[in-house]
Amino acid sequence: MEDILKQVQAGTLTVAEAKEKLATYENLGFAKVDHHRKKRQGFPEIIYGEGKSSEQISSIITAIKEKNNDVLVTRISKDKAETVLKQHPELIYHEIAEILYWKQNKEKVTESAGYIAVVCAGTSDLRVAEEAAVTAEALGSDVRRIYDVGVAGIHRLLDNIEEIQHANVSIIIAGMEGALPSVVGGLVSHPVIAVPTSVGYGASFQGLAPLLTMLNSCASGISVVNIDNGFGGAYNAVLIDRIANNKG
Amino acid sequence: MEDILKQVQAGTLTVAEAKEKLATYENLGFAKVDHHRKKRQGFPEIIYGEGKSSEQISSIITAIKEKNNDVLVTRISKDKAETVLKQHPELIYHEIAEILYWKQNKEKVTESAGYIAVVCAGTSDLRVAEEAAVTAEALGSDVRRIYDVGVAGIHRLLDNIEEIQHANVSIIIAGMEGALPSVVGGLVSHPVIAVPTSVGYGASFQGLAPLLTMLNSCASGISVVNIDNGFGGAYNAVLIDRIANNKG
Amino acid sequence: MEDILKQVQAGTLTVAEAKEKLATYENLGFAKVDHHRKKRQGFPEIIYGEGKSSEQISSIITAIKEKNNDVLVTRISKDKAETVLKQHPELIYHEIAEILYWKQNKEKVTESAGYIAVVCAGTSDLRVAEEAAVTAEALGSDVRRIYDVGVAGIHRLLDNIEEIQHANVSIIIAGMEGALPSVVGGLVSHPVIAVPTSVGYGASFQGLAPLLTMLNSCASGISVVNIDNGFGGAYNAVLIDRIANNKG
Amino acid sequence: MEDILKQVQAGTLTVAEAKEKLATYENLGFAKVDHHRKKRQGFPEIIYGEGKSSEQISSIITAIKEKNNDVLVTRISKDKAETVLKQHPELIYHEIAEILYWKQNKEKVTESAGYIAVVCAGTSDLRVAEEAAVTAEALGSDVRRIYDVGVAGIHRLLDNIEEIQHANVSIIIAGMEGALPSVVGGLVSHPVIAVPTSVGYGASFQGLAPLLTMLNSCASGISVVNIDNGFGGAYNAVLIDRIANNKG
Amino acid sequence: MEDILKQVQAGTLTVAEAKEKLATYENLGFAKVDHHRKKRQGFPEIIYGEGKSSEQISSIITAIKEKNNDVLVTRISKDKAETVLKQHPELIYHEIAEILYWKQNKEKVTESAGYIAVVCAGTSDLRVAEEAAVTAEALGSDVRRIYDVGVAGIHRLLDNIEEIQHANVSIIIAGMEGALPSVVGGLVSHPVIAVPTSVGYGASFQGLAPLLTMLNSCASGISVVNIDNGFGGAYNAVLIDRIANNKG
Amino acid sequence: MEDILKQVQAGTLTVAEAKEKLATYENLGFAKVDHHRKKRQGFPEIIYGEGKSSEQISSIITAIKEKNNDVLVTRISKDKAETVLKQHPELIYHEIAEILYWKQNKEKVTESAGYIAVVCAGTSDLRVAEEAAVTAEALGSDVRRIYDVGVAGIHRLLDNIEEIQHANVSIIIAGMEGALPSVVGGLVSHPVIAVPTSVGYGASFQGLAPLLTMLNSCASGISVVNIDNGFGGAYNAVLIDRIANNKG
Amino acid sequence: MEDILKQVQAGTLTVAEAKEKLATYENLGFAKVDHHRKKRQGFPEIIYGEGKSSEQISSIITAIKEKNNDVLVTRISKDKAETVLKQHPELIYHEIAEILYWKQNKEKVTESAGYIAVVCAGTSDLRVAEEAAVTAEALGSDVRRIYDVGVAGIHRLLDNIEEIQHANVSIIIAGMEGALPSVVGGLVSHPVIAVPTSVGYGASFQGLAPLLTMLNSCASGISVVNIDNGFGGAYNAVLIDRIANNKG
Amino acid sequence: MEDILKQVQAGTLTVAEAKEKLATYENLGFAKVDHHRKKRQGFPEIIYGEGKSSEQISSIITAIKEKNNDVLVTRISKDKAETVLKQHPELIYHEIAEILYWKQNKEKVTESAGYIAVVCAGTSDLRVAEEAAVTAEALGSDVRRIYDVGVAGIHRLLDNIEEIQHANVSIIIAGMEGALPSVVGGLVSHPVIAVPTSVGYGASFQGLAPLLTMLNSCASGISVVNIDNGFGGAYNAVLIDRIANNKG
Repeated sequence: MEDILKQVQAGTLTVAEAKEKLATYENLGFAKVDHHRKKRQGFPEIIYGEGKSSEQISSIITAIKEKNNDVLVTRISKDKAETVLKQHPELIYHEIAEILYWKQNKEKVTESAGYIAVVCAGTSDLRVAEEAAVTAEALGSDVRRIYDVGVAGIHRLLDNIEEIQHANVSIIIAGMEGALPSVVGGLVSHPVIAVPTSVGYGASFQGLAPLLTMLNSCASGISVVNIDNGFGGAYNAVLIDRIANNKG
Repeated sequence: MEDILKQVQAGTLTVAEAKEKLATYENLGFAKVDHHRKKRQGFPEIIYGEGKSSEQISSIITAIKEKNNDVLVTRISKDKAETVLKQHPELIYHEIAEILYWKQNKEKVTESAGYIAVVCAGTSDLRVAEEAAVTAEALGSDVRRIYDVGVAGIHRLLDNIEEIQHANVSIIIAGMEGALPSVVGGLVSHPVIAVPTSVGYGASFQGLAPLLTMLNSCASGISVVNIDNGFGGAYNAVLIDRIANNKG
Repeated sequence: MEDILKQVQAGTLTVAEAKEKLATYENLGFAKVDHHRKKRQGFPEIIYGEGKSSEQISSIITAIKEKNNDVLVTRISKDKAETVLKQHPELIYHEIAEILYWKQNKEKVTESAGYIAVVCAGTSDLRVAEEAAVTAEALGSDVRRIYDVGVAGIHRLLDNIEEIQHANVSIIIAGMEGALPSVVGGLVSHPVIAVPTSVGYGASFQGLAPLLTMLNSCASGISVVNIDNGFGGAYNAVLIDRIANNKG
Repeated sequence: MEDILKQVQAGTLTVAEAKEKLATYENLGFAKVDHHRKKRQGFPEIIYGEGKSSEQISSIITAIKEKNNDVLVTRISKDKAETVLKQHPELIYHEIAEILYWKQNKEKVTESAGYIAVVCAGTSDLRVAEEAAVTAEALGSDVRRIYDVGVAGIHRLLDNIEEIQHANVSIIIAGMEGALPSVVGGLVSHPVIAVPTSVGYGASFQGLAPLLTMLNSCASGISVVNIDNGFGGAYNAVLIDRIANNKG
Repeated sequence: MEDILKQVQAGTLTVAEAKEKLATYENLGFAKVDHHRKKRQGFPEIIYGEGKSSEQISSIITAIKEKNNDVLVTRISKDKAETVLKQHPELIYHEIAEILYWKQNKEKVTESAGYIAVVCAGTSDLRVAEEAAVTAEALGSDVRRIYDVGVAGIHRLLDNIEEIQHANVSIIIAGMEGALPSVVGGLVSHPVIAVPTSVGYGASFQGLAPLLTMLNSCASGISVVNIDNGFGGAYNAVLIDRIANNKG
Repeated sequence: MEDILKQVQAGTLTVAEAKEKLATYENLGFAKVDHHRKKRQGFPEIIYGEGKSSEQISSIITAIKEKNNDVLVTRISKDKAETVLKQHPELIYHEIAEILYWKQNKEKVTESAGYIAVVCAGTSDLRVAEEAAVTAEALGSDVRRIYDVGVAGIHRLLDNIEEIQHANVSIIIAGMEGALPSVVGGLVSHPVIAVPTSVGYGASFQGLAPLLTMLNSCASGISVVNIDNGFGGAYNAVLIDRIANNKG
Repeated sequence: MEDILKQVQAGTLTVAEAKEKLATYENLGFAKVDHHRKKRQGFPEIIYGEGKSSEQISSIITAIKEKNNDVLVTRISKDKAETVLKQHPELIYHEIAEILYWKQNKEKVTESAGYIAVVCAGTSDLRVAEEAAVTAEALGSDVRRIYDVGVAGIHRLLDNIEEIQHANVSIIIAGMEGALPSVVGGLVSHPVIAVPTSVGYGASFQGLAPLLTMLNSCASGISVVNIDNGFGGAYNAVLIDRIANNKG
Repeated sequence: MEDILKQVQAGTLTVAEAKEKLATYENLGFAKVDHHRKKRQGFPEIIYGEGKSSEQISSIITAIKEKNNDVLVTRISKDKAETVLKQHPELIYHEIAEILYWKQNKEKVTESAGYIAVVCAGTSDLRVAEEAAVTAEALGSDVRRIYDVGVAGIHRLLDNIEEIQHANVSIIIAGMEGALPSVVGGLVSHPVIAVPTSVGYGASFQGLAPLLTMLNSCASGISVVNIDNGFGGAYNAVLIDRIANNKG
């Protein structure tokens, strides 16, 4: 701020110019984060598709592309996606993950020195697992998928534990009793992001059961996101993966 | 019933005698179970101590002993137990399990051909685990205790899995996230009785979290009893253990 | 393990062969259960049909049949089942139970020396009751169905109580207030598996009411599985029924 | 109202007198119930003791006695009651029911042509059962106590069912799983008032379990009051008992 | 029982005949209620239509009519009812109440000396209110409907309070905040049956809000049935109404 | 009342006339509010459209128009509205707000000296926000819409805070975590009405999460209405806005 | 901002001075509210006493008094208050309201042209009612207390309704079923702030029942604050009362 | 494994030696994590103090010190800590955090290239905030405390936002409405660990409200741990901080 004021004092800056600069400065106190993040990290702009029409999504994408940015649409059904694709045929739709994304500047992605392990308990958790995996990939991380390794058959997990242990961070997805993050948490030394799913019935209460399980985990190093929030799990994991990779 | 009526017809039974016998018959339709069970299996009579005064407990015990039966008092605090022990010094009090019991006829207990595995996740679950173990022993079963083998350090469980696998039935006790029964359930071929405990804080909601975890277990062969109900878990396990042993 | 090492020492086993054998051994520490169970007990492989397409189910069945194993598919709707039956016409579909199953080796089933009582409160609980009954039969147990004996007309239950009392184990299915297991539990001396159903409305809260009722039962010898989990109830009961029969 | 106006018209009533009478009339539209009830039925005035000091209770009683009315104080602990009794020694304190009451005009009570059955499941429900029984007696009804007849030992209930069946109305009190009203409801033809209690632990959730059980009862003719509300159950039952007796 | 035995003793009854009579006697201990009720009170047999097919309902009705009994089907949709009506055209369908009923012997109905007040808060509660009113009428009671008198416009209630006050018993139906029974309860001296409805949104939680409101009512003389249970409310009210009328 | 009585006394009023006048007076004690409000404030009559057929709505509107009053129908779907519009083409339908309204006497609206700020967190909250905004406008207030200013991008809120600060009262609408009212509450000196929405998924539990957030706000001056109750929020705000404007 | 820059340009302000002024400006964008409110309205600074020691409270008060401001401490027990009073003897402690307050500049309070009605249902709600009333008075409003007018005796409320109707705003406090705000809301034309209390037992669930009742009120013009939050209710009411009075 | 087998083949390893090595290898598959973590990262061994006696804690510490390891005891009250300190006077007790810890080898701690921001909303959250801060320090991280910056006074947060933005990771602690993590999450580009606290009353439901708020946050990059779990928040943050620092 001092510089701007000195320029005004020196007459090299008009009052109007100074006003605009100061306004920017003031706003930057809160807004710089977004710009900073996008510039340094190449994050796409993210649209939550649920509750938006395909027309709304299409026009938001048009606006983003005009700024030459990447885009990532989550929770978008096949029907909606097909309508959007007619107008934006360069986008890619991932049917299981229900994600529509576009990467203009693939070269921006950092050379990855590690990976995120996306681990899920059962095949019914696939949609959420793929939402996590595809999101992480779209945000520029390498991903290893270790699926169908629920705790009821612990040998399947133990057969794959080394690949999980070597990750920078892991995303553990589980419905029903949601016990998988606790077991994995005791076997790895990196941060674990736990994602409960609404898979189950009866006393699962739409994912409340695995949510409580994960929050009460007696393993250290586990934090939790909302039920079915594969995107949120991935976003957290990518932030950590970037810390690991950017410093390497 | 036919026999009684024929005796009346034949005059070898008065109407009054027949009436009493028929009443007994009628009631036995519902009541015989208790007598049958006690006679064949040597079950003690069980008193739930919570909410009863030491005086009430003492006089119930006196009544039971007059029938020459064994007795088992659960959920009885040390203070109350000490008062009861003054009047019934032949009883034994187990402080951690909070159980007071007495066995008059120890020779009645069947020669055990197997055992119940009592498994608990952490040292904080000890009270419930001991309630289960002491109950099972008082009901005449052999018990093996495998404690402090929670899923967050899965190698501790795996180091002890063979002893659990060789049991006739196992009681798995866990608080916090309650994931242990799911893991054990996938490693054994016998019935598993899961007992959630109120151990934990915050989103454990006094045992709701492990209760839901256990009800939603994706491992087969697991059934669940009430929160902190070590006694109930043991009672179920003993019924199964007796089936296994009585037939051997 | 010692044997394998001695063979290596003796040169009768190559390093590669030993490595594979040891890996098997190591895994068997955790995996042997499944193989053991299937071999000794003739359990079919179980597929949870909900959330899987008929194509997915069909191809899993094909894979199982290649291993010459039995198969049991639960929670499969009539529509899906009919599609699967086109490819696997030798399977049998039970419409009420929503179960599709196949038994190649019927002679493997043990000669039964007892039976499981499947008891339900009302006709609305039929789907869950049949899921339990058909599962138990498919797993090789004899089953007696005692239906529509809810506690609001206790004489119907008392008229059938002897058949329940003579079972090795009983599965009690009830929705609405779920009081039936408590009453039965006081009249039998064998283990009772209680299955709450989501039948009801209003303050039943999709089965929460009977679930809580059963967990709080003051009758001893009752354990509980998830809401509507007829399969789980049957699986538990069969484990106990086999203990009773295998020893006979 | 017409009468009053006619008297004004006739000059036998001043405007001031008419105004007061009409005000009374107007208020009576809403208030007459209380007076009517007390006069015809001899209901005492009821004080809810919880959260009131013994001083407050004492002075309310003094005020009631000045109006020559009976009084009934519920939920009053022994300590408080003893303080109140110093000032009002003519009152009677019932320790288990935690009720303090006084009956000046015992002759007012109607000649009873029937009774209320107060039925409870276990000895732990005694406090609530006695709150119901003593309240009903203080309100002028005859009461028969049938205690400790929980459903887990159904023969105890069946041994006493005739006494319950002959009542005008019954109050059924139960904690834990709360199944007793359902069973009784199927065996009697009179109205059943169900009172859940907070007796239990774990998944009883302070009486939520029996409350839901009773609300979902598949027996007809059962209605429910709040958890531990023995007073409310009695009040409802007395209203019905009076209908039965007043008409006889 | 004594009579039967004496006849056997006297030889006027064979053993087989005595056996059957005693069995009846024994069962009557529990079953007589239903017969008694039906005979004395002319209650129709009640079928809960939800979850039953029109074919199932039709055949149950056929069986009931063979016994010359009345029938009442609740929770039956228009579609199902129309199918049933083709086979049983003498039945009457009440579309709002979703009740199908038939009265063969209308003269059996007792001469009514009073009535039940069916009171509801808003027009959205109409379905439940009519379920209550039509049920009560089908069970032989006189009914007065006082609708749309919710507490937010208290003058509407006060304008109708006398008609409610003169009833033998009232059924108060309300959704949303469910405050109506509390207000009515303070204005009448007869028993009030409160029926919460699932009418509302958001924090009504499908009727949980008015259910809790009614259970916590500070007015005396109110008891509660399940959410949307118009039938249950009516059944309770009719039992009380019959006590009032039968004695008159 | 005195006047009426004096006229009776003087013979200038018959008893019948006096009776009717007094009845009116009595009722006015409770009913005058509605009339007063409508007359002074020009409030339309409000119909809650959900659960009412288009026929029912049409005939209520006809009745209201006969009294020359304004009308406002909330929660009415496009389909229903179109049917109503055929009979009442002078009404206006707002599709997002799902509100149908009519203003006969627009000149009655007070000259507004301030405005209500309607603030919402995300575009998914639009339906509720518009229900609030359109309701407030239909009730005669000026409204400023400040949308899509959720707390996750606090600079968007801060850029618009002055417009919110200058309002007489603000309605803050938010789903998901519902944090917006807390932040706004700390930045304004007028009353804040918080409206939680059911927008979200998983642990939002249909709006329970933002409802609890708003009730627990540590900012002073915030009160809360039901989930998705945009109408209720607006009604409260208009009452306050009128106080501010009517006095100006 | 423009003025400051022009002064810099003109040389009448140094860079350092301008920097400080601009910083103030920037912060004022968010902070000015508090200062503005206090200066114009004479609001005391408010301390939430729960969880703070009497030492902490004392030193905060000392700091506030140095700024010559008023102070208001809520939720402070008698014990703590007495300790604080030793150091600050000029403060006044209100024992029922558990509020400690101090008014240095009583003349600052605006001449009140109206009042707030504080209405409560029962004597058990007194603590919360007094917290509301004393807070409102300490914030400078006139208060009328209308206590013990619960809906179960509606005539008590109707006898006092005019005093409530004439208020600028009313605070309605109720526990148990919490129906009072709905009834009052239908009888007044001003905003109603509803405060649920934790008074009650059983299914009141610590105030959840009245909270839900109030949120679901079908009366318009009601908004709700947290359970037992008498302070919050008063703060909202005072904001509205000031709007009414400041304009008068 | 191959190496071991080759040595056996070559005769340089006996069968017994090989067996032990392989056993170690096998176990290491699961156990190596703990050792690895401790060796590389200098993590102390952690004891959860709640529910353990001071004697138990003392003897566990003795055992740990024999292995020359650091120790950290959480949730240990002042009383217990003082008893433990008598036997282990070299330990340090942090009273607010309720943590007892000991660091033998302080030089092992990595040279920190960044810090963790511990941010809390109010002074009542201090205990949990200090549990987080002291834990993080004891685990070797640098910590910056930014306290009392709740969202109701957003300028306090904005004044400190740069210090938070420069952290590697932040722990955000909040009770009541728990909105702080959402606001911070929108202003920083690093991972945010949110810790709800049980601070609050009424509808906070012991921390359920802020827990749900945080799980539903619409800001990306936030994950959540259990209510009051300051330790868990710190553990997660330290794992991330080490990734950031170890790579620098």
